[in-house]
Amino acid sequence: MAEDIKGITVKKADDFSEWYSQLVQKAELADLRYNIKGFVCYMPWAVMSIKKMYDKYEKLLEKNGHLPLIMPSLIPESNFLLEAKHVAGFVPQVFWVTEAGNEKFEERLALRPTSETALYKMYSLWIRSYNDLPFKRYQSCQVWRYEGKATRPFFRAREFHWIEAHNVFATMDDAKKQVLEDMEMTHAMLEQEFSIPIIFFERPQWDKFPGAESTFAADALMESGKVIQLPSTHLLGTNFSKPFNVKYTDKDGTEKLGYITCYGPAISRIYGAMIALLGDDNGLILPFDLAPVQIVIVPVIFKGAREMIIEKCTEVHDMLKDKYAVKLDLRDITAGEKFNEWELKGVPLRIEIGPKDLETGVAVVVNRFTKEKKAVDVNKLKEYVDNVAKNYTNVLKEKKLLAFENLVESCETMDEVKKAIGNGKIACCGFCSIGMDGQKCAEAVEKQITADVRGKKVTEEKHHSSKCVVCGKKAKETVYIAKSY
Amino acid sequence: MAEDIKGITVKKADDFSEWYSQLVQKAELADLRYNIKGFVCYMPWAVMSIKKMYDKYEKLLEKNGHLPLIMPSLIPESNFLLEAKHVAGFVPQVFWVTEAGNEKFEERLALRPTSETALYKMYSLWIRSYNDLPFKRYQSCQVWRYEGKATRPFFRAREFHWIEAHNVFATMDDAKKQVLEDMEMTHAMLEQEFSIPIIFFERPQWDKFPGAESTFAADALMESGKVIQLPSTHLLGTNFSKPFNVKYTDKDGTEKLGYITCYGPAISRIYGAMIALLGDDNGLILPFDLAPVQIVIVPVIFKGAREMIIEKCTEVHDMLKDKYAVKLDLRDITAGEKFNEWELKGVPLRIEIGPKDLETGVAVVVNRFTKEKKAVDVNKLKEYVDNVAKNYTNVLKEKKLLAFENLVESCETMDEVKKAIGNGKIACCGFCSIGMDGQKCAEAVEKQITADVRGKKVTEEKHHSSKCVVCGKKAKETVYIAKSY
Repeated sequence: MAEDIKGITVKKADDFSEWYSQLVQKAELADLRYNIKGFVCYMPWAVMSIKKMYDKYEKLLEKNGHLPLIMPSLIPESNFLLEAKHVAGFVPQVFWVTEAGNEKFEERLALRPTSETALYKMYSLWIRSYNDLPFKRYQSCQVWRYEGKATRPFFRAREFHWIEAHNVFATMDDAKKQVLEDMEMTHAMLEQEFSIPIIFFERPQWDKFPGAESTFAADALMESGKVIQLPSTHLLGTNFSKPFNVKYTDKDGTEKLGYITCYGPAISRIYGAMIALLGDDNGLILPFDLAPVQIVIVPVIFKGAREMIIEKCTEVHDMLKDKYAVKLDLRDITAGEKFNEWELKGVPLRIEIGPKDLETGVAVVVNRFTKEKKAVDVNKLKEYVDNVAKNYTNVLKEKKLLAFENLVESCETMDEVKKAIGNGKIACCGFCSIGMDGQKCAEAVEKQITADVRGKKVTEEKHHSSKCVVCGKKAKETVYIAKSY
Repeated sequence: MAEDIKGITVKKADDFSEWYSQLVQKAELADLRYNIKGFVCYMPWAVMSIKKMYDKYEKLLEKNGHLPLIMPSLIPESNFLLEAKHVAGFVPQVFWVTEAGNEKFEERLALRPTSETALYKMYSLWIRSYNDLPFKRYQSCQVWRYEGKATRPFFRAREFHWIEAHNVFATMDDAKKQVLEDMEMTHAMLEQEFSIPIIFFERPQWDKFPGAESTFAADALMESGKVIQLPSTHLLGTNFSKPFNVKYTDKDGTEKLGYITCYGPAISRIYGAMIALLGDDNGLILPFDLAPVQIVIVPVIFKGAREMIIEKCTEVHDMLKDKYAVKLDLRDITAGEKFNEWELKGVPLRIEIGPKDLETGVAVVVNRFTKEKKAVDVNKLKEYVDNVAKNYTNVLKEKKLLAFENLVESCETMDEVKKAIGNGKIACCGFCSIGMDGQKCAEAVEKQITADVRGKKVTEEKHHSSKCVVCGKKAKETVYIAKSY
């Protein structure tokens, strides 16, 4: 296959959507040809990173006191009907199992679209007294949602892979503290580990999870100028503990309702956002820890020197293999083809060794992200690689965080909001209210500039503007407006 | 709660089935009260070990060249119908998704009972030439089977958690070599890591996977005198590559069918077999690596010395916590209650520190498996713990492997077979054939002693007997007969 066919044929800045599709296909991350609409096969190169992302997230959740569960994936329809708003929100999206073998069921079984109604039925059995609180559990699993919107691998499909944490507390205050812990976990994972800059919002009341008191969620901004929702946390209060009877006996001997929060990082979606955000015209860029291959060694072979070059490459491979995921690429294709392929796949470091390098005792090290190319004395190679490896993700992350800061624009008028959005930015402005009484103004925003009020920052210190950008009334909040996926 | 209520109230040797049920309930491993028949909640203490088991298995599979995939869990009925024997074998067990939202589907979608028919449809797109072979992939996922038999947590449920590896080779010889690699992986994992002694069999032709040329499987023997099937490997040959069109272009330019094998370690079931096999009258025993808590530190507090004891315990905790999963149990219950609870939960080492120990500068270390109790100088505690920790699983494993050797009994007559089985052993004897012509003799065995011909060893060197134990004709094989789950 010719090199020019293998690479991505559009620039990311010119056609983000086509660039993403080609990236997913050519770097062999997912296959859309599975013969059920909306269902996608995730390929090894993506799965290897996704598994590492799960591992990091699970470790953090456990460090913060969450214990793992494995729950059944089917939920009886009767569980589902217990919380009225929840059922109204989810039923249009539920896949139903109605028969097995030759038997038709009397009651339909839902493929879980989310596990509140499976878990809280059990929580009412597991939680007895204040000694059991806080009760923090999570499971890593897939969920199914009969989505109407177009499939886009990792971003949106009818089956996706997430973690869901469900926690019960003695008081609303404790539950609210969990929201802040979730916010911190989201920053620690998305920004620090995956290099995805985010804003953590409290969503407006008209845009909350079915059955929640409030919803909180992180938004990341894609180069398309649209934000994508990443993990969300729902403060459920006692809305589910009432119908599901999640109660505890307090110190004073009385029975009280538990206060519930749930947190749902969709790992497959975060992976999609990460590759979309970090990649460039040549293909994937990955944080160093998450790359399935961290260092590739490519011999640049000329006649005569073949054996000596391979010997030196093997030496370098053996020197690095205990500490890093290293691949020595000895395939019978040109070095140029190999360079392109590993760039496409986002391998952070490439080491090239050719005949001239043998003579001078150096190896050429190429950094996938910065594109820096450096001839390094083979004796100092280990030290150099250790240093670049240690800083690779930091450099990547800092560049992305810095760029993101410039993508938020303070606005005083609707015209300014419109202009900011038109430039692919997030507008920040005064707004009357994210309570239900602000919904009319949000609808006006959507109508006039097809953008959404994403919510207010949980930790906003002071307001930028005193007036609502739409109605001109006193602004109770500073909100952020953006186009969204 | 009184101590005697918390512990298991029957002896394992007296009533294995009741012992197992109490173990699962009292050590809080699974909850059977989920409101769909046959579906079980796995609790944190079990899930933490199961996750470690997955991790070990996945690492070994990847070391042996398998790459991870994530496939959709739904399979169109039309895929399923492509291989006639497969569909006949599985359709009675399939859960069907027939609708979503307000829409009824034209075609039913199966919840995968196993993934051959999902994967091989994609394999026909992914495999092009001999360069792609061997093609080795795996996924870690759950499967659903509408089982008629009674639910027993971990052993048998309608949703269970496994790994399935599916591999394509250029020749039948290569495929057969994979069967041997699978056998080695099974021994490496089950015996060396999980301390479960097994025999790896080629199953008789009448007992093979629907659609396979031959089936190979490991059996472990439980204290109930029944064997349980653990991972199995199926040599599918070209039976699936034909209908699913899994072909490759060979070096000579011609198109050839791929030869397929699949391997399915059911991790949740292996966990069940492991805790059943290793546990004792006091509760769980776990291999050191798999224990959610490896060392528990229990202060034995008497009046006056409370603070000093807790201080010393904290010191010991901090000394061990970087290397081991250590828990310092400061709950407000008696030391005796703590001892019982952590024994029930199978924590390998317990360190007790009381007022007398403070004076003499020692700590008491108790080994959960050997029951050995030793007073160790606190200055030498780290060294002692390192040593016991390193050997814990070896001691456990060797004892179990040794005991297993005595559970296989060579027999020459049906009476001897019957007696061996009656004594809870596995009988080993001459048999006419494990091909279809031996089925009548196997039926006679089942009728006369309600036991199954499990198959022959893949690596049997010589035959024990020259005659079939049933029909008296020349014995072509040495088979093993046992009662089974």
